[in-house]
Amino acid sequence: MGKKVIIVGGGFAGLKAAKVLGGREDVEVTLIDRANHHLFQPLLYQVATAGLSESDIAVPIRNILSGFSNIKVLHGEVETIDFQKKLVCTDFGCHPYDDLILACGVQHAYFGKEEWESHAPGLKTLEQAAEIRRRILSAFETAEREDDEAIKRRALTFVVVGGGPTGVELAGAIGEMSRYTLSRDFRNIDPKLTRIILVESGDRILSSFPRKQSSRATRDLENLGVQVWTKSSVSSITEKGIEVAGDKIEAMTVLWAAGISATPLNQRLGVELGPQGRIVVDAYLNIPDVPHVYVAGDQAAFTGASGKVLPCLSPVAIQQGENIAKNILRSFDGEPREPFDYVDKGQMATIGRSRAIVDLGFLRLQGFIAWLTWLLVHIYFITGFNNRMSVFLKWCLSYVTNKKGARIIPGATWRFFDTLPQAPEEAKTKKIPPHE
Amino acid sequence: MGKKVIIVGGGFAGLKAAKVLGGREDVEVTLIDRANHHLFQPLLYQVATAGLSESDIAVPIRNILSGFSNIKVLHGEVETIDFQKKLVCTDFGCHPYDDLILACGVQHAYFGKEEWESHAPGLKTLEQAAEIRRRILSAFETAEREDDEAIKRRALTFVVVGGGPTGVELAGAIGEMSRYTLSRDFRNIDPKLTRIILVESGDRILSSFPRKQSSRATRDLENLGVQVWTKSSVSSITEKGIEVAGDKIEAMTVLWAAGISATPLNQRLGVELGPQGRIVVDAYLNIPDVPHVYVAGDQAAFTGASGKVLPCLSPVAIQQGENIAKNILRSFDGEPREPFDYVDKGQMATIGRSRAIVDLGFLRLQGFIAWLTWLLVHIYFITGFNNRMSVFLKWCLSYVTNKKGARIIPGATWRFFDTLPQAPEEAKTKKIPPHE
Repeated sequence: MGKKVIIVGGGFAGLKAAKVLGGREDVEVTLIDRANHHLFQPLLYQVATAGLSESDIAVPIRNILSGFSNIKVLHGEVETIDFQKKLVCTDFGCHPYDDLILACGVQHAYFGKEEWESHAPGLKTLEQAAEIRRRILSAFETAEREDDEAIKRRALTFVVVGGGPTGVELAGAIGEMSRYTLSRDFRNIDPKLTRIILVESGDRILSSFPRKQSSRATRDLENLGVQVWTKSSVSSITEKGIEVAGDKIEAMTVLWAAGISATPLNQRLGVELGPQGRIVVDAYLNIPDVPHVYVAGDQAAFTGASGKVLPCLSPVAIQQGENIAKNILRSFDGEPREPFDYVDKGQMATIGRSRAIVDLGFLRLQGFIAWLTWLLVHIYFITGFNNRMSVFLKWCLSYVTNKKGARIIPGATWRFFDTLPQAPEEAKTKKIPPHE
Repeated sequence: MGKKVIIVGGGFAGLKAAKVLGGREDVEVTLIDRANHHLFQPLLYQVATAGLSESDIAVPIRNILSGFSNIKVLHGEVETIDFQKKLVCTDFGCHPYDDLILACGVQHAYFGKEEWESHAPGLKTLEQAAEIRRRILSAFETAEREDDEAIKRRALTFVVVGGGPTGVELAGAIGEMSRYTLSRDFRNIDPKLTRIILVESGDRILSSFPRKQSSRATRDLENLGVQVWTKSSVSSITEKGIEVAGDKIEAMTVLWAAGISATPLNQRLGVELGPQGRIVVDAYLNIPDVPHVYVAGDQAAFTGASGKVLPCLSPVAIQQGENIAKNILRSFDGEPREPFDYVDKGQMATIGRSRAIVDLGFLRLQGFIAWLTWLLVHIYFITGFNNRMSVFLKWCLSYVTNKKGARIIPGATWRFFDTLPQAPEEAKTKKIPPHE
């Protein structure tokens, strides 16, 4: 019987920690996730816009870890944690731990306007992506079959709230879709007349990028027919549409990419919470005064060298998962632990099918070359050879044929409350899809 | 303004009819379907068993037909038809027709035990396939995390009701999955201990095949760990399990592949109904005394030369769709119509990953060579180059790696009552579809 390590969450942070601990026979690892799959969230917006299928960006966690005989993967939901008794209590019983790694990610926040959720879904899980895809495709179908011009216009108006990478990528993908993918498929409407509005409350989109790159991204979006409204805040969202700074916009489809907050679990832990309700951790990603309990990824509020809390990005999650796992092994081996030090690898975002912006600090790229960089990085990092092949094939095909492979509308799958976000990552992305 | 032809249903029959009528500028075609996609139903069981993704076997109907400027595709549901006024009334208004082609297919029947539906889903739509996949994968997850042996056993017991091709393919695929795909992924259970029971009320499975081939299929199933219970009828199905001829079987997963009945629409039409409530048609697939209204595919009860009503098979649907469309064009051109004559191309069914039986009448194959034939035929006929590539790639990969690409559990998507079966083709016997 080795030391018991429990990891909660099979996202970027949890998975990385598991891989580091994997193979150590003196450590018994249990990974618990309420989903059975690891989600490659940087490409989630492609599922939402019919470029990829669910199974292209999701891999069963137990499949990824099946090579490690010391790792057990359990499908379930954590309800509470007893730090005194060192127990993780789930919907299938309580489990003792020697060391605990929390990596549950975050979910969307509506700034206290939770009633907006059903009118403006967020994009964190596969189910949400499927629901967004259903809404986008159904809107075009409605416009095609309706004779009432007002309804047609409402159906062909899409509003994306939030000018971060996810919002930009969603808006760009919808522009791409309406201009190219769908253009030949309809008889009663011209998809090119689709109205797409990206709403951002700040003074520019992609504010984490240099100013010059933001404005380049804005131009690229406008070339795809996306109207970018900055300094605009949302005052209401209903089934009819959205009200932005006094303007009423009749829209059948409103998408939310504007804010995040920690999972409800955090409130139940009685620990200090930082911005967005994320758990405050020390230099070792340890919860202060709660020995052997670590937090990684979006769920953690770690204050970096800059004095700022690190953003919700996959590189942060991966590096933190690795640091925690290594420190756990070090303490088992009686070695001193090492404080976490974030190595910034830069950031990227894509706009439409062949444009992106890449900021590596020392190097800044835009346009096609940036997009190529984006493409290679994502093809390289997506989990699983199988998916990599499939994604790459679909992208090549769609790049040539300009069609989307996953334009299927199943019955509604809107069940936000059944599903917790996987280990997040404010999407950095690109788009390009397939189809005969 | 050309003649108005309305096609209801975008399955094998409706799609074939549309393609024949496509490009004729003197004909205005409207195809109405409650799904936005054409479904390649012969492979639906692969989606249900995580071998393929939804988008591998489904293609947007308007995408398939986008090349024909005289065809309009509308996403909606037919409520009633007024034969006098020649109107098709849908959830988005009534539409006039000169000629009408009905190809709505069939749905599952529970022989008056509709309460069984929620405990034993059938396999007709993408949503049902996703739900079946969710139940199968969740059962293994439950067994892995449970300590109670009784619950473990219940979770690892799968019952498939109905020994036709769909039932055989489902049972075989589950056997394959438990023996090979999942074997290395679990720690607390041995998936090889999975109990799979195929229940058939008749005296043999695959009764439409020669007796020798049925028994070969039975042996192949048993090699995959499937128990075949013939002459066994179901007396009850509950959330606890199933009762077969007095035996109570505790099973978490029960699947239904035992019976079909026509869509509710048929009852509302006030026409003569044949077996399974399918619409009786004359030699021209015309509803007697209802001029200009034709029925094709599973929805039609056409009595063949043999004096028997033709089975629910894709080749029947495709040939009937073609005959109707050609006759409509003939009458527009003032030529005499030709009665429908079914050309039987043979039938096939597959068992697991590398076995099948093929009956071409003059030639009978079993085992690996039959499976290769099955593979080539299905790769060839699946709609869409892109899907063909993707399906082929996934099969090659999974054949080599023994992994399944689509083992993702999204939130429950069980909404049978929102979704009617797609247009035609009972996933029954895979007859070899004729040339396109």
